[in-house]
Amino acid sequence: MTLPQTSSDAIAPSATTTQHWVLSFSCVDQPGIVHAISGAVVDAGGNITESQQFSSDDTGRFFMRLQVLSPATRDELEATLRPVAERYEMSWKLDIVGRRIRTLLLASTAQHCVNDLLFRARGGQLPIDVPLILANHPTLSDLASFYGVPFEHKPVTGPDSKAAFEDRIREVIAEHNIELVVLARYMQILSPELCEELSGKAINIHHSFLPGFKGANPYKQAHQRGVKLIGATAHFVTTDLDEGPIIEQDVARVDHSRTPAELVALGQDEESRALRRAVTWFAENRILLDGDRTIIFQ
Amino acid sequence: MTLPQTSSDAIAPSATTTQHWVLSFSCVDQPGIVHAISGAVVDAGGNITESQQFSSDDTGRFFMRLQVLSPATRDELEATLRPVAERYEMSWKLDIVGRRIRTLLLASTAQHCVNDLLFRARGGQLPIDVPLILANHPTLSDLASFYGVPFEHKPVTGPDSKAAFEDRIREVIAEHNIELVVLARYMQILSPELCEELSGKAINIHHSFLPGFKGANPYKQAHQRGVKLIGATAHFVTTDLDEGPIIEQDVARVDHSRTPAELVALGQDEESRALRRAVTWFAENRILLDGDRTIIFQ
Amino acid sequence: MTLPQTSSDAIAPSATTTQHWVLSFSCVDQPGIVHAISGAVVDAGGNITESQQFSSDDTGRFFMRLQVLSPATRDELEATLRPVAERYEMSWKLDIVGRRIRTLLLASTAQHCVNDLLFRARGGQLPIDVPLILANHPTLSDLASFYGVPFEHKPVTGPDSKAAFEDRIREVIAEHNIELVVLARYMQILSPELCEELSGKAINIHHSFLPGFKGANPYKQAHQRGVKLIGATAHFVTTDLDEGPIIEQDVARVDHSRTPAELVALGQDEESRALRRAVTWFAENRILLDGDRTIIFQ
Amino acid sequence: MTLPQTSSDAIAPSATTTQHWVLSFSCVDQPGIVHAISGAVVDAGGNITESQQFSSDDTGRFFMRLQVLSPATRDELEATLRPVAERYEMSWKLDIVGRRIRTLLLASTAQHCVNDLLFRARGGQLPIDVPLILANHPTLSDLASFYGVPFEHKPVTGPDSKAAFEDRIREVIAEHNIELVVLARYMQILSPELCEELSGKAINIHHSFLPGFKGANPYKQAHQRGVKLIGATAHFVTTDLDEGPIIEQDVARVDHSRTPAELVALGQDEESRALRRAVTWFAENRILLDGDRTIIFQ
Repeated sequence: MTLPQTSSDAIAPSATTTQHWVLSFSCVDQPGIVHAISGAVVDAGGNITESQQFSSDDTGRFFMRLQVLSPATRDELEATLRPVAERYEMSWKLDIVGRRIRTLLLASTAQHCVNDLLFRARGGQLPIDVPLILANHPTLSDLASFYGVPFEHKPVTGPDSKAAFEDRIREVIAEHNIELVVLARYMQILSPELCEELSGKAINIHHSFLPGFKGANPYKQAHQRGVKLIGATAHFVTTDLDEGPIIEQDVARVDHSRTPAELVALGQDEESRALRRAVTWFAENRILLDGDRTIIFQ
Repeated sequence: MTLPQTSSDAIAPSATTTQHWVLSFSCVDQPGIVHAISGAVVDAGGNITESQQFSSDDTGRFFMRLQVLSPATRDELEATLRPVAERYEMSWKLDIVGRRIRTLLLASTAQHCVNDLLFRARGGQLPIDVPLILANHPTLSDLASFYGVPFEHKPVTGPDSKAAFEDRIREVIAEHNIELVVLARYMQILSPELCEELSGKAINIHHSFLPGFKGANPYKQAHQRGVKLIGATAHFVTTDLDEGPIIEQDVARVDHSRTPAELVALGQDEESRALRRAVTWFAENRILLDGDRTIIFQ
Repeated sequence: MTLPQTSSDAIAPSATTTQHWVLSFSCVDQPGIVHAISGAVVDAGGNITESQQFSSDDTGRFFMRLQVLSPATRDELEATLRPVAERYEMSWKLDIVGRRIRTLLLASTAQHCVNDLLFRARGGQLPIDVPLILANHPTLSDLASFYGVPFEHKPVTGPDSKAAFEDRIREVIAEHNIELVVLARYMQILSPELCEELSGKAINIHHSFLPGFKGANPYKQAHQRGVKLIGATAHFVTTDLDEGPIIEQDVARVDHSRTPAELVALGQDEESRALRRAVTWFAENRILLDGDRTIIFQ
Repeated sequence: MTLPQTSSDAIAPSATTTQHWVLSFSCVDQPGIVHAISGAVVDAGGNITESQQFSSDDTGRFFMRLQVLSPATRDELEATLRPVAERYEMSWKLDIVGRRIRTLLLASTAQHCVNDLLFRARGGQLPIDVPLILANHPTLSDLASFYGVPFEHKPVTGPDSKAAFEDRIREVIAEHNIELVVLARYMQILSPELCEELSGKAINIHHSFLPGFKGANPYKQAHQRGVKLIGATAHFVTTDLDEGPIIEQDVARVDHSRTPAELVALGQDEESRALRRAVTWFAENRILLDGDRTIIFQ
């Protein structure tokens, strides 16, 4: 199974009028990159409307995200950019601003994250298309139906059904050309193989302020420890459970009077917000990976 | 060595006019406590101006904090309250609202927490008196002198000098009748014996959002892990390093561009604020212990 | 038209087993109130599980909210409390903890606040029952249907249709014994007469941080003024537009790059949160009025 | 009186080794700007380490801030940049990263903002040099002396002494080549003439969340209005009182129990933080003016 890796996959046909493009790339840091890339943009008749960059002291790499208005077609733009990209050995991606990315939601019984994502997707604030919600419980069937999103339910009760569920994930990804997999409180641990396959393309929401309270029942752990702030962490899925690159975190103030059940209820808002932001930034090509850390160009 | 344990220690002489008292207590939860204690307050000619309570599901204990205006003397008030306190086997403390508690600051080279506490103490916003700053470096001598606070410097370079430093802590506590010891970025670990002696009377500020990033160099750990919020935690000192009951936590948003050194600078504000609040609440008798968790009556 | 005013309206039949009651009251501040009321609670076999109080320097009034576990029936409890209430000339209300209050939602075209309230009501986190959504546009019909809430649409295009809409509000209140009216981004100004009738029973969400940016298009005003934080304010409806007692406020950080349209999208989250909290506190009898200010017992 | 206006004033002598430069500019938005300016940087042997830009829909102007490592001297760098700056009719400034700007503090009796700024300046976290504190009260004399900053006290009791105070401001600016004037809770209104002269060079801290509660006693106003968040606003001084371009705002949560005096104490922290950030960003050339709004390149 492969997710779309290159910049030319899964993009709408070339536009003949002025298009708003987003270009993101990284390469080894060195002088002249900005001038070279902006020169290519000028050569393609483009105007840079937004630009962010970062030089990582940790890895020596340079990261950049540009938004460019240009009348060039995708082929023309790629032809102009490619020599620069090759000269600097860039890892790069060219996309269209506002394009809705194809997103698979994995869910279980909790509704808040799925509802939040679908509500915003329908309202046009979150640029994702969801061709399917795949869940290990039937609970969210009604919610999916309200939002007009296909819903499929496959129980996970042991190793065999788990493997079957993961095979179904692979099928859906291939069939719908999925670009992002969101674990929207899907409470199962993915197999190491699937984690590898989805590397950099799957986002999970963990219901604690990582690295505190990894694993199960984080709100119960938070209550026992008596923390004064609870949190949520959206991160890329990796084979190391709850150790993937952190994309976004959010916290809410609590006090001694809150029961573990109340922490669960309070934390739902932070979970929804952190996950929503992470998905938005991914869809807008604002997240780049610098080793185990994320660069977020807001 | 003992810190003042009972309610009658270290209090100003009885007032003959109306006084603003604060009464805090805990006992096994059972019906009738509020009525009994408010009855005693009425019997002492008192008017309750502030009241907070909490019943702990974790320990079955009941906690309460009252502020009472009363013309009674301390002896009269204690005489009226004692029968109720004994009937319910209360652990209780009677104090005067706004009284400045005698506080020993332990410091090293970092200035921000000490400066924040002394600035607010001088301005009357933080009800503490600081008879001495005891430090293992001479760095803060000038700062202490500006605020008119005696400063003493004793190097800690090994087991012997560490034991000597701790003996000096004990002496100062005895000599000045110290009620609270604040480790204001004092970067040494106290011996288990001293931790025991200071149980419930010593507050430390840890420069991370506990339980994440215990131990040394938490900002470096935070940078490596790529967290999106950094924090600070004020907690009671216990023999388990960085595991004492949490009093207050605060966070600040950061992004990928921050170096570990910048995280250190940014975090100072959160450290100062969390520590200042913890000390304020302690001085105002707003912190009660419920096992390993704190009750904070704000 | 009258909304239920007294404590005995609209309450479930008396329970024969232990019930969790909430008592809220205010009266002129004076000594002995806490003892008197806690005495009545003890006489009714009650145990106080939660208690908050406040003495207002502005108005000289005393406010209190108690949660009480008691096996007494409503009649018994009222009979025990009434003499105390009369002696201190209390304005008081006795209710059952967790009872869902009957709430009328007024809406227009915006979905976010209505969706947020209904999602939480369905999930059991918000104790309201919504017998009807009354809107001046048909937009939210589908949303209402998803949540199984009756929806009615009446256009408001001029004085006559506005008067007819308000008469329909009055009918619905009478018919469904409505306890709370929520203007969930209902973009019409209520008539002074209706504001009067709904005094203390109608909550509006204004999409700015009041008192800044009253009136229309607050996000456009905020953009023009270049503020660095945008906000939302939930407040009681009064005849003075956007001047009613404030219940809750929330803000979000923005920067220069945000267009007015983006401020609108960003602010929706703050609007939903502020309104949700205000409705929750109202339903839990946590809001008391002290002149033009609200006391919130959280 | 003039403040330094051009890029070549008041800068340390040319360095012969690699220097870290900061270039900020604005001009009419048009294609090719980024390429042209980055080309000039490359021509000067420079490497762009940080870059931010913004195109204003409100004014049609383009804003950019660059940090550049370059071995060129100031003369060389200016010679290379000038043709580009002239071609695009840029308003531009070239400075050295980390240079401490000469800052005049105006103060009255309140200590918290002055203490916060001087504490951070001394610790190296705030790149300002303060040659003088000018105050209309003697209160802060000791504080100034602790930080080793000259202090001058001139009473303002009427029109004549006010004019004399402002003349002294002008003298100090000329004498010390002052680049920034900070009204650190200086409670006097500057004359329209002086406001004009200091346009874009004077920062005030107002103790409310503007545009709410302009004018005097904002915390009293906030208490009366019953707001749930109080705030502070750092803004450029203009002839319209409390209407200057907003640089930074900060809020703190409060509840009904806070007296106006407590709001004053609580708000000091927000005032200090908002002012400190505004001064830091000014010193780092991160603030550009877009009409009445500020662009902040963080």
